[in-house]
Amino acid sequence: MNKKKIFNDPIYGLIRFNHDILYEIIDHPYFQRLRRISQQALSHYVYPGALHTRFQHALGALHLMTRALDTIKSKGVEISDDEYEAGCVAILLHDIGHGPFSHALEHALANVHHENISLLLIQKIAEELNKDFTLAIQIFKGEYHRPFLHQLVSGQIDVDRMDYLTRDSFYSGVAEGIIGYDRIITMMNVVNEQLVIEEKGIYSVEKFLMARRLMYWQVYLHKTVISAEVMLISILKRARYLAQQGTKIASSEELTFFLTTPKDNQTIIRHPDFLKNFVLLDDMDILWMIKKSVNHEDFVMQYLCKNLLDRKLLKVTLYSEESFETYLKAKKAFQVKLGLNDDEIEYFFSEKKEVIFPYDTRAGEINMLMKSGRIQPYSALNPNLLTSAEERTFLFYQRDISK
Amino acid sequence: MNKKKIFNDPIYGLIRFNHDILYEIIDHPYFQRLRRISQQALSHYVYPGALHTRFQHALGALHLMTRALDTIKSKGVEISDDEYEAGCVAILLHDIGHGPFSHALEHALANVHHENISLLLIQKIAEELNKDFTLAIQIFKGEYHRPFLHQLVSGQIDVDRMDYLTRDSFYSGVAEGIIGYDRIITMMNVVNEQLVIEEKGIYSVEKFLMARRLMYWQVYLHKTVISAEVMLISILKRARYLAQQGTKIASSEELTFFLTTPKDNQTIIRHPDFLKNFVLLDDMDILWMIKKSVNHEDFVMQYLCKNLLDRKLLKVTLYSEESFETYLKAKKAFQVKLGLNDDEIEYFFSEKKEVIFPYDTRAGEINMLMKSGRIQPYSALNPNLLTSAEERTFLFYQRDISK
Amino acid sequence: MNKKKIFNDPIYGLIRFNHDILYEIIDHPYFQRLRRISQQALSHYVYPGALHTRFQHALGALHLMTRALDTIKSKGVEISDDEYEAGCVAILLHDIGHGPFSHALEHALANVHHENISLLLIQKIAEELNKDFTLAIQIFKGEYHRPFLHQLVSGQIDVDRMDYLTRDSFYSGVAEGIIGYDRIITMMNVVNEQLVIEEKGIYSVEKFLMARRLMYWQVYLHKTVISAEVMLISILKRARYLAQQGTKIASSEELTFFLTTPKDNQTIIRHPDFLKNFVLLDDMDILWMIKKSVNHEDFVMQYLCKNLLDRKLLKVTLYSEESFETYLKAKKAFQVKLGLNDDEIEYFFSEKKEVIFPYDTRAGEINMLMKSGRIQPYSALNPNLLTSAEERTFLFYQRDISK
Amino acid sequence: MNKKKIFNDPIYGLIRFNHDILYEIIDHPYFQRLRRISQQALSHYVYPGALHTRFQHALGALHLMTRALDTIKSKGVEISDDEYEAGCVAILLHDIGHGPFSHALEHALANVHHENISLLLIQKIAEELNKDFTLAIQIFKGEYHRPFLHQLVSGQIDVDRMDYLTRDSFYSGVAEGIIGYDRIITMMNVVNEQLVIEEKGIYSVEKFLMARRLMYWQVYLHKTVISAEVMLISILKRARYLAQQGTKIASSEELTFFLTTPKDNQTIIRHPDFLKNFVLLDDMDILWMIKKSVNHEDFVMQYLCKNLLDRKLLKVTLYSEESFETYLKAKKAFQVKLGLNDDEIEYFFSEKKEVIFPYDTRAGEINMLMKSGRIQPYSALNPNLLTSAEERTFLFYQRDISK
Repeated sequence: MNKKKIFNDPIYGLIRFNHDILYEIIDHPYFQRLRRISQQALSHYVYPGALHTRFQHALGALHLMTRALDTIKSKGVEISDDEYEAGCVAILLHDIGHGPFSHALEHALANVHHENISLLLIQKIAEELNKDFTLAIQIFKGEYHRPFLHQLVSGQIDVDRMDYLTRDSFYSGVAEGIIGYDRIITMMNVVNEQLVIEEKGIYSVEKFLMARRLMYWQVYLHKTVISAEVMLISILKRARYLAQQGTKIASSEELTFFLTTPKDNQTIIRHPDFLKNFVLLDDMDILWMIKKSVNHEDFVMQYLCKNLLDRKLLKVTLYSEESFETYLKAKKAFQVKLGLNDDEIEYFFSEKKEVIFPYDTRAGEINMLMKSGRIQPYSALNPNLLTSAEERTFLFYQRDISK
Repeated sequence: MNKKKIFNDPIYGLIRFNHDILYEIIDHPYFQRLRRISQQALSHYVYPGALHTRFQHALGALHLMTRALDTIKSKGVEISDDEYEAGCVAILLHDIGHGPFSHALEHALANVHHENISLLLIQKIAEELNKDFTLAIQIFKGEYHRPFLHQLVSGQIDVDRMDYLTRDSFYSGVAEGIIGYDRIITMMNVVNEQLVIEEKGIYSVEKFLMARRLMYWQVYLHKTVISAEVMLISILKRARYLAQQGTKIASSEELTFFLTTPKDNQTIIRHPDFLKNFVLLDDMDILWMIKKSVNHEDFVMQYLCKNLLDRKLLKVTLYSEESFETYLKAKKAFQVKLGLNDDEIEYFFSEKKEVIFPYDTRAGEINMLMKSGRIQPYSALNPNLLTSAEERTFLFYQRDISK
Repeated sequence: MNKKKIFNDPIYGLIRFNHDILYEIIDHPYFQRLRRISQQALSHYVYPGALHTRFQHALGALHLMTRALDTIKSKGVEISDDEYEAGCVAILLHDIGHGPFSHALEHALANVHHENISLLLIQKIAEELNKDFTLAIQIFKGEYHRPFLHQLVSGQIDVDRMDYLTRDSFYSGVAEGIIGYDRIITMMNVVNEQLVIEEKGIYSVEKFLMARRLMYWQVYLHKTVISAEVMLISILKRARYLAQQGTKIASSEELTFFLTTPKDNQTIIRHPDFLKNFVLLDDMDILWMIKKSVNHEDFVMQYLCKNLLDRKLLKVTLYSEESFETYLKAKKAFQVKLGLNDDEIEYFFSEKKEVIFPYDTRAGEINMLMKSGRIQPYSALNPNLLTSAEERTFLFYQRDISK
Repeated sequence: MNKKKIFNDPIYGLIRFNHDILYEIIDHPYFQRLRRISQQALSHYVYPGALHTRFQHALGALHLMTRALDTIKSKGVEISDDEYEAGCVAILLHDIGHGPFSHALEHALANVHHENISLLLIQKIAEELNKDFTLAIQIFKGEYHRPFLHQLVSGQIDVDRMDYLTRDSFYSGVAEGIIGYDRIITMMNVVNEQLVIEEKGIYSVEKFLMARRLMYWQVYLHKTVISAEVMLISILKRARYLAQQGTKIASSEELTFFLTTPKDNQTIIRHPDFLKNFVLLDDMDILWMIKKSVNHEDFVMQYLCKNLLDRKLLKVTLYSEESFETYLKAKKAFQVKLGLNDDEIEYFFSEKKEVIFPYDTRAGEINMLMKSGRIQPYSALNPNLLTSAEERTFLFYQRDISK
């Protein structure tokens, strides 16, 4: 019997689930496909250990979900077995709509939010397995009448974030991102159907927010990481340009579908072949095209692919009036020297602004359950909390080409 | 300056090297290629975390080498800076000759020992970087007059083994494989130019040998892992058959080279295009072919690729007289039912014997430095030591095909 | 409410228990006393981190017990809530009868097996809390009709051993002792009311036995550790001698009781003041006496206490015909030089034989549940298993006294 | 030879030092005494694992010092062997002047800053070992002409803090306190003889400051921890009162010295017997008195000692106008009920204000070395930095005494 299989997770140890449906989902090819989609895109160029996949993350988030639900039940909150299972299905499939290289390429291939694709795929899997996922979908969309179930899946302090911060930090070797997920879960409770964190967990919440912010600037938005990702996006953009020109590139059928179909939300998601192609697409398609284009006849394509493959990345500096001036000069000189037109130069020199919200009150508060029994929004308790956006603008430029 | 870059290793923390040449090697495309060659082939089908690459292992082994050399020097053994550097180059490049999926495919693509290819590549890199690696090559081949340097690179208890056991155990989440590399290195010394372990480290040696043996049976030769690898080898074999028949398959030029060139040692390594193709070949080539062959016209190819991709693996049982009989019956029934010829049935039903040596005296002893000053071979000190081979025969069979 | 308190364990994280009675026991002064009894006696002289107490170990073993019972229940074995609770009480109190410095002094103060004292104390605590521990006592003594409950508390692979190996290894920093407790527990099951380990856990069992053996020779019986413990035992012996002579020593009333009452099993455990004094006795009493005797008028007492306090330990060598001869000569010379009588010299020069059983079939087998459904004793599966005793004899001698 | 001994630290692994003098200091009875002084006083009442000692911390800080000095040297800063050794001596002995229960009792026994006592002891050890510690003392006092050496020993981000945060967090099991000591050390450098952190380490500095602040509120100033410490201080105060009254208490000679000598700085440190008694005093003296006073004739002494021993601690609430009123009423009622005078009631009901500075610019800045080459104070780079004091007032009260 394959059921009740045990997974060996380097972080949580041996993990196992109680509902057969979860194993049926995991065995489904749409879910197995997550084995071929990296969680952290090209972060491994900076943190060589960061090679884990969405497959592992989804299992990890599911494990934390069962821990959270068990904790909440042990505090006397009734959760029916159907709700428990549906919550598990919802978290297991929450990211199923991610395409290759996850966030890095989220809008480069199809301008559709991954949650919309997740929804499509959840319905498709339900059909194929001949199950009813209505309750799971309600939880996923936040339409179920017990909001805490949705908040566990998607909120300021959900099991998704807890797993990916823990996991990304573990595989990157960046101690700064370690959060006390164990303690946060232990402090979870439900009041008036809302998820709350008991007051004793206040420092763990602070640590969590701090760790998340540091992981953004130190890992996800590390300048070398985004340099590689900017190159990746440029390659896709160039590939689309070439494909639409009719120039042959080493792209699979499914990738060709995405390169040649208008990627705006309205058009692409309604295309009859969208889903068929989407479930075939994974990191392989992209990596293959890059690897096979290092001698492409198009200079831009060839150059970007060769350099990305061999880890010769664009130089990056933080924007300042001064650095911007230098940047513009170098850009001009490069354009002249190589004889590039105004479109082409953008593949080698570009700007990018990154914005994060350390705590985003627009997305709802973390609610704290005080010892007095009152509920307080976390922002009212931490005078030092960063609720506004932090932003940085990066300038990318090509190193001397004759090198 | 890219020099003196720091690597963030999830196991050892921040690591850094003192010799510029090491960074030049790491930046070379031949070495960067190791980023695309997994260390543990398809183990991740059983241990989802085991996605690390030869790139990480090579850096890790290098780090342990510097630790070992520093320790030995601190005990008064003179090691010149040239020897130190050459030892580092030797270990950094010791596995450079590995092809895709490492050991799993070592003889499936070209019947050449990877160390011979490593040697070719070390010489090629030396040329391209315009350096003299004579000393490193002597150490690598065991021809240098100070044997301990070679023993650190390749011996019963070398830094290669210490890193891969530690790393594979870490990423698999299998605590059984944890070794006390720290303590072993601390106990290293050199007597008469031979590597020795001080007597105090005797339990660490025992633990090391035990952990290695357990890792073999529990991870490397885990029956589900080898089931996946048997399928992978079968796919390659079928691909070669098809390619030689002239049937089109989704193989890259470099893979096609290997599929269509006689793979015996004498022929292939002397082929003028061997090296050019070898350095282009990585896991991508294989994964791509598999992914693109799930609808191949050839039933065997299509069936194996689809099943491997979706993780529908061959069933495995240990050989016994009884189980072998059952196996043969099932094989016959399957062949009849599907109408397969005698070659074809072998892709679905096969046997494989695996042999390990917990301690292989043929490969030289671990020498212990007793408090009395005498040197003793480890085998003389541990009456309980397993020096003979352990073997198991596995039977692989296709589950009911109508399922 | 103090109930449902969470403990923060450096090894297992946050742990919590479901039965109120467990918290009542933990809060009882007899249990709080375990905070003042170190788990590893004087091991911290070699492994400075090894300062943990019996209090932590008892909580840890309890945690593993709940993990084991939950696992077994999840496999369909019925365990009533009363049995669950009683099993927890039994493990929580299994070591309550340990006196100061645990095993090191087990027979130095009273020649009574600690399990007999545990039994007395369990009954006393039951009385004081006004509870019925009959079931827990049956489990503790192995008299309950479902043997697996006793086997979890006390057997070849019980939660007691799993916790102390893990914990001692963690605090000592000795990686050699790490066992995969997680995997072993996951593989536990019950067949015919006997505890079994499923076949898949066979390597974890091997690792467990190996780790236990290494921990004995490398930590528990590390020669410097036993040197310190031999000195501790000698101090107690001398203190008893002095106390019985009527010489004043810095001993507490409870310690004086033990020093002046005949320590043979029959006499002491029936003494009306035995229990009253026993529950007052802890590491403090011993440490205090040592600290306050560094200037004692008795040369033997003063010398041993001063040296132990300042970590000037007896020299140790392994017994051999040769070393024994040297030892005897040194002993004679020392006796002459210091003018000691035949009793006194024994405090400075002594021999000790240590014996361990890597796997002790006399204590019952580890039973393995094969995939075939059959039960096999572990010894039948591992041809390499050490079932005979291993022994070493150590010679302790006083370094040059004029130093 | 005892020299070049290796210490097994659960956090850093095997550690070893290059200078013989360090081993001579470690073997000295004054240093061995640190084995009997806990690092975290009574924190183990909340975090049972927190039993580590000043001995371990001093070795750990020394290890980080060698790592920091090696790093700085590897960046081209010249550090002579004398400076290296002196820096090591300074950090090894920086806390030698701590008395029992460290910070908890710093002013309860003698109103002298521990650094002044450290200085006395460093000189005494130098004398006894017949060494010259002039350079080490200059570094310790911040009078050496190369300030970075002092800054490593004592500054906003010194090896002392890095070790104790890491160690306390490890033993408490509080993940919130984990800092990236490895990365911080890697980023250390020296410019104009000042310690600087390279810009790349900016997030690690932020994490360090955050972790430190969280450790204060969550561990060091955890309300149950300070409740126990308030009781400990009260016991000392009562003991002093009783001793001065001539009432007999179970105190050692050395403790009696401290209880009966005026504790103001000017008087006590000049007392001819100060040092002699100080080096004898450790946690044992205090624990012994408590244990032996659980039946003391004085109600206050007896009551506090019994309760502290059995972990029946004072209740704690945070100060607010409302809670203060409740507190005052309870205090009054208790005083009346028990018939206590105005001095006595203070042992059972008291207030305490705790203040921390998350970043204290008065103690000097952390200087950051920007990529541009400029030095910037950390406070100029982090707009979100907490430089003002945070304070909390706690109210302690005795639970119902009839309970």
